[in-house]
Amino acid sequence: MHEAAVLDGPSVEELDLVEVLQALGDPVRLQIVRLLAGADGPIACHEMGLPVAKSTGSHHLKVLREAGVITAEIDGTRKYHTLRRSDLEARFPGLLESVLQRGERTKR
Amino acid sequence: MHEAAVLDGPSVEELDLVEVLQALGDPVRLQIVRLLAGADGPIACHEMGLPVAKSTGSHHLKVLREAGVITAEIDGTRKYHTLRRSDLEARFPGLLESVLQRGERTKR
Repeated sequence: MHEAAVLDGPSVEELDLVEVLQALGDPVRLQIVRLLAGADGPIACHEMGLPVAKSTGSHHLKVLREAGVITAEIDGTRKYHTLRRSDLEARFPGLLESVLQRGERTKR
Repeated sequence: MHEAAVLDGPSVEELDLVEVLQALGDPVRLQIVRLLAGADGPIACHEMGLPVAKSTGSHHLKVLREAGVITAEIDGTRKYHTLRRSDLEARFPGLLESVLQRGERTKR
């Protein structure tokens, strides 16, 4: 059994508040974060049912990963994504939970 | 004694999570928010000691006001700004406090 490769992202200590806020400040990226928060395990992009083109979805996932909001694990030709919930909670206590509890659709 | 005019912003019900996160996701705007959070009363732009040109500072204040993070009150030729702390807390419980408690300087 091979091990899946995990794409690099910032460590907990490197998580930057401005970058995390910018990453969260987009309706599609918030949708991804909520989806991953409610998931049992890692989710691939094509399983997310995002309302955007595949390349746009990939871009949003990259922004989230580079800000340290999610991890991406490569398995064969697919990337599986996980929310870094405990890392974010350790660095910015309460931030992610306050964002997740506002679950209704935003204006745009 | 004349009454100062208050510039319009969204009502509590109209506050939009994406817009608020976008407004907070900037180092200068976070600096303004922290400054206002620690202030005894309204503060004018020129009293903020922002590390940017006056026009840039005005732009950031406008973004914060339009997102509903701050109010602006016109008094003569000056605008005085106040953080909408209780409005934000009512609409997005815990969000502003989680941002404010991370008080150290961000990477950029």
